[in-house]
Amino acid sequence: MARIGVLTGGGDCPGLNAVIRAVVRKGVADGHELVGYRYGWAGLLERDAEPLTVESTKGILPRGGTILGSSRTNPYKKDGGGTEAVRAGMAAFDVDVLVPIGGEDTLGVAARLAADGVPVVGVPKTIDNDLKGTDYTFGFQTAVQIATDAVDRLHTTAESHNRVMVLEVMGRHAGFIAAHAGMAGGGDVILVPERPFDIEVVCDHLRRRHAHGRTFSIVVVSEGAVPQEGTLTTSGEAGRLDAFGHERLGGIAVTLESEIERRTGYETRMTILGHVQRGGTPTAFDRVLATRFGVAAAEAVTAQQSGVMVALRGTDIVTVPISEALGDPKTLDDKFFADAEVFFG
Amino acid sequence: MARIGVLTGGGDCPGLNAVIRAVVRKGVADGHELVGYRYGWAGLLERDAEPLTVESTKGILPRGGTILGSSRTNPYKKDGGGTEAVRAGMAAFDVDVLVPIGGEDTLGVAARLAADGVPVVGVPKTIDNDLKGTDYTFGFQTAVQIATDAVDRLHTTAESHNRVMVLEVMGRHAGFIAAHAGMAGGGDVILVPERPFDIEVVCDHLRRRHAHGRTFSIVVVSEGAVPQEGTLTTSGEAGRLDAFGHERLGGIAVTLESEIERRTGYETRMTILGHVQRGGTPTAFDRVLATRFGVAAAEAVTAQQSGVMVALRGTDIVTVPISEALGDPKTLDDKFFADAEVFFG
Amino acid sequence: MARIGVLTGGGDCPGLNAVIRAVVRKGVADGHELVGYRYGWAGLLERDAEPLTVESTKGILPRGGTILGSSRTNPYKKDGGGTEAVRAGMAAFDVDVLVPIGGEDTLGVAARLAADGVPVVGVPKTIDNDLKGTDYTFGFQTAVQIATDAVDRLHTTAESHNRVMVLEVMGRHAGFIAAHAGMAGGGDVILVPERPFDIEVVCDHLRRRHAHGRTFSIVVVSEGAVPQEGTLTTSGEAGRLDAFGHERLGGIAVTLESEIERRTGYETRMTILGHVQRGGTPTAFDRVLATRFGVAAAEAVTAQQSGVMVALRGTDIVTVPISEALGDPKTLDDKFFADAEVFFG
Amino acid sequence: MARIGVLTGGGDCPGLNAVIRAVVRKGVADGHELVGYRYGWAGLLERDAEPLTVESTKGILPRGGTILGSSRTNPYKKDGGGTEAVRAGMAAFDVDVLVPIGGEDTLGVAARLAADGVPVVGVPKTIDNDLKGTDYTFGFQTAVQIATDAVDRLHTTAESHNRVMVLEVMGRHAGFIAAHAGMAGGGDVILVPERPFDIEVVCDHLRRRHAHGRTFSIVVVSEGAVPQEGTLTTSGEAGRLDAFGHERLGGIAVTLESEIERRTGYETRMTILGHVQRGGTPTAFDRVLATRFGVAAAEAVTAQQSGVMVALRGTDIVTVPISEALGDPKTLDDKFFADAEVFFG
Repeated sequence: MARIGVLTGGGDCPGLNAVIRAVVRKGVADGHELVGYRYGWAGLLERDAEPLTVESTKGILPRGGTILGSSRTNPYKKDGGGTEAVRAGMAAFDVDVLVPIGGEDTLGVAARLAADGVPVVGVPKTIDNDLKGTDYTFGFQTAVQIATDAVDRLHTTAESHNRVMVLEVMGRHAGFIAAHAGMAGGGDVILVPERPFDIEVVCDHLRRRHAHGRTFSIVVVSEGAVPQEGTLTTSGEAGRLDAFGHERLGGIAVTLESEIERRTGYETRMTILGHVQRGGTPTAFDRVLATRFGVAAAEAVTAQQSGVMVALRGTDIVTVPISEALGDPKTLDDKFFADAEVFFG
Repeated sequence: MARIGVLTGGGDCPGLNAVIRAVVRKGVADGHELVGYRYGWAGLLERDAEPLTVESTKGILPRGGTILGSSRTNPYKKDGGGTEAVRAGMAAFDVDVLVPIGGEDTLGVAARLAADGVPVVGVPKTIDNDLKGTDYTFGFQTAVQIATDAVDRLHTTAESHNRVMVLEVMGRHAGFIAAHAGMAGGGDVILVPERPFDIEVVCDHLRRRHAHGRTFSIVVVSEGAVPQEGTLTTSGEAGRLDAFGHERLGGIAVTLESEIERRTGYETRMTILGHVQRGGTPTAFDRVLATRFGVAAAEAVTAQQSGVMVALRGTDIVTVPISEALGDPKTLDDKFFADAEVFFG
Repeated sequence: MARIGVLTGGGDCPGLNAVIRAVVRKGVADGHELVGYRYGWAGLLERDAEPLTVESTKGILPRGGTILGSSRTNPYKKDGGGTEAVRAGMAAFDVDVLVPIGGEDTLGVAARLAADGVPVVGVPKTIDNDLKGTDYTFGFQTAVQIATDAVDRLHTTAESHNRVMVLEVMGRHAGFIAAHAGMAGGGDVILVPERPFDIEVVCDHLRRRHAHGRTFSIVVVSEGAVPQEGTLTTSGEAGRLDAFGHERLGGIAVTLESEIERRTGYETRMTILGHVQRGGTPTAFDRVLATRFGVAAAEAVTAQQSGVMVALRGTDIVTVPISEALGDPKTLDDKFFADAEVFFG
Repeated sequence: MARIGVLTGGGDCPGLNAVIRAVVRKGVADGHELVGYRYGWAGLLERDAEPLTVESTKGILPRGGTILGSSRTNPYKKDGGGTEAVRAGMAAFDVDVLVPIGGEDTLGVAARLAADGVPVVGVPKTIDNDLKGTDYTFGFQTAVQIATDAVDRLHTTAESHNRVMVLEVMGRHAGFIAAHAGMAGGGDVILVPERPFDIEVVCDHLRRRHAHGRTFSIVVVSEGAVPQEGTLTTSGEAGRLDAFGHERLGGIAVTLESEIERRTGYETRMTILGHVQRGGTPTAFDRVLATRFGVAAAEAVTAQQSGVMVALRGTDIVTVPISEALGDPKTLDDKFFADAEVFFG
């Protein structure tokens, strides 16, 4: 029997609550007790925690967000206190083992803690699906579904007019959401971070489509898509930073809207989905994945594993060293993009 | 027995196809024949039309867009040829009576034609719900539902963080979509064209909410919302025109995102729904309304009415003089807005 | 300033929580205090209540069900104790005025209480839309939307095969849901309680459709639809009672599935939506209607009205005597059904 | 360059049109020509086919059903004519290679044709997900999503009352849909074909839940779930056959509704989703899977493979011998069911 400390770090992702609920249910079934730290690693550093029970996690399965709150606090940054501070935060609640649910940053902390001897089982989380070591992460399919619904709606409105529709979706370093939603919705151009674009090539493609009788086009673009160096001098909006030094959503679509219209003369309109993609109830796929991740994390604790994270491989949930998820982000497979390109034009 | 010419003018609106199908089905049942003009009034001027039959309108009920296409062509503008050109376009297809489906511009043409003796029965259409003479127009509820779904999703993501979410919805001259979606989704601030806003009042309201322990806020803003004169000097984006002289979507949210963040220090993120609100399948409410409008339009033709449009009054579909819809746009009722304000703060 | 006692009676209806929240928010804004009785009138008789505050009703707007619980307890039945018992239940919590949210039974109690001098403002509720005195009730559009989504899905599967699809929807005494969803989804036959059906007429209609080349048909049927006397001797399932003496869902579709297949030889399949129609988040339309009802109920209390209920008339919320909702249920308008019939065949 | 004959066999499945479109687009890109046989193998036997082009498959990606129609015709049954008849049907349209999209029956024919030297590349299809050789089939996630949405809605209505909700979903021989939707929606009992149930064990479980303060329960049941021998003598409805000898939907829920209510005294209500699960637009996941299957099938033709089918393995699309999909159906993994059971009670 152990006392398990659960926390969620980084940006929102549909399915976080489903993971929390599943860790608790399986953890309790296996004889453990559970504590939830509030606001990610900050809860450990600031000793802000609450008991997690079957009762307190009832009804949260379908809900977006995270009942524990989240933050970008990192114990190894800015006087965070490092491993010792985390150990103290564990001791304050008699916690033996941690189950952090998070992305590259959170898992990086987890790996370092494990290396220092702190028992840790990680749960990978990224809405962009850009973590290595797992086939998919929860939340990603939900974002793809929301973006696909938007492409579907844009299709019918665009059909009635002579237009270009630009849809900006999430994806800072990887174009999975854009490529999947573009393929699922039948987008005509897909722009992803992995492939810097030449605006004139994009416009030529649109012009060719129109010359062949297509009267509208849909451009699906990742927020992190960037022009090839020197090809788009007005791209000041792309990659702009906000007051907190975070990259800003909404840049590239603004640029594309005006550039495409200016260069082709086609009426161009943008949609920026923004955080709509991060919120709300997860799809059934993501709820199942998140639930199985949570169950597997509790099982790994019971099996006294550490330094591992749960992962999807085919139809199985397995554990892999956390290190597999670290380093460069996972990026879009060339074959997948080639398959999507079949439908351009 | 008459030959009825149907056309759709102006911007897309979910439910246009449902109206077309219903005019055809009821028209045929009443012994009429039907012709569809392509691309609005342009089809009359350019003699571009096709027969509309029960068979050719099968399966279109749930589909967004309009099978007839649309345009902003106005026979009374730019050498359009006026009433005589319309008469010639009718004669070319042996059309006796017109059923134009459209907004203020289309209905204005309809009224002028009726005054000149052309038999016309109009069907009012505006996604913004800003036409007088009818309780609601089809498409509006669909847009409200899409915007409400977005507010719902923003709620859960915002809850986990300390944030302001800005959601820009349609509504150039009237704030119906923003007010309805804001009320339906539980928005914390609603900005509409009818009430120019003071950015500092907005920010103060957000600060007060946070001082009272709220950790997030959702601002629902109509695309046509404008700052009070002199209160927001950086509002250059609002109301900007595109290459075709149309007002541009997406301006005000960009401004609000940066201004709110700059002034309050709260992390602020925007979503711009754009044409997603105009496309896709109509809600059941809008399908029923559009279908009843179409049936009633055919009935008005059978009854040899002219110069009228169909309208919703309570639970009934009636006909009213087209002139009732013309003139100033319908704007948001003070009482409705006051009801929405109960939930601010 | 008053203390308002709120309760919800009868079956579930999406929007109940939105009404509760709105009564509380507007009530508090007007200086009142609020108490929620649990499980309808039972909460008064058994003195089971809780304070309702802005805080305790936060986040409930989009949720199905009712946070207060519901029951079919009636103080005027089975030793309920009548008006005096209700007065005692009010006194126990210092409640001055009641806001019961419910259907014919609940409103009947409300009217009797008002007649006995108890201050009461009612809020009408019926998912079937069969209450007089108001254009629509909240929850109805949500049920129609869910049923319409089902018709849409049945359409595509039916198209590929030679089939009849039977969809059973709610509606014990009135066919509003069936008629609206049938019109919105493009049903080919609509069977409602108001018009007892002849199974052979139904089968003949299906045979005629197939003879004209249609390869599938969708039959939308209210749970309360009944065969004409003597026309369907195997209809034992229809109207069967459950162990609690309530009419049973799911009867008529079972009968129609086997009878249509037996008589026509067409492969026939049923869907019974059941309580799926009563649960889950309300549509935007119903959230707005429910919210406005709640606000108006609080306003009526402030205005010291009694014996009235809130009601929708056109685009306005008004108050009308509760008695307007009592007596025979509202049934489907002949004109509406005639409009739906245009699309049969 | 080849002429590829495409056909769809067996029951509907969301994503069939996406596969057809993708085979066509990639086939044309690779220099092939395409022909679509109507109504499955019947199109070959009756020489009913049409050219499939990029133009003729435009816009079908999001649509349910199959533009080619389907049937259960099997060339090896009832004077079908066997391999020679299929060869003749290919020759009639100069078809070199077949791409049949279907389930166990269709793929069985494909394997036999390949053994006889007919070039064939199969695409596996089963909404129940019960085919071996591939991680998932398209359509399955869509059915799971629809069923999960229903569980979500039942949750809120059930919460307000003291009730048992029985939801019958698809799954004749395998409980994948019930288990996934049950896990995703938080069902309290899941009954699947792989595990014959004892009605008294089910009722005891429900009684225990209620004794522990739960006031409602949701039972998710596969249409093919069966009682343990001798445990439910009134189960005559389960497994009943229709006029065509097909097993009937809707049996087991009818039985469970009355048996649970009779034995526990809890008010019990059923929902039977039926073909709603087979129709309508596919989820984004299924559109991507179906599209990739179609692209891979065209690639396999180009690579002159035969006797293979496309399959999902992890994140990759591969080809495997068709024989891998034949034989016993794939059934639910014990570990998956055990994970779902964690949340019962």
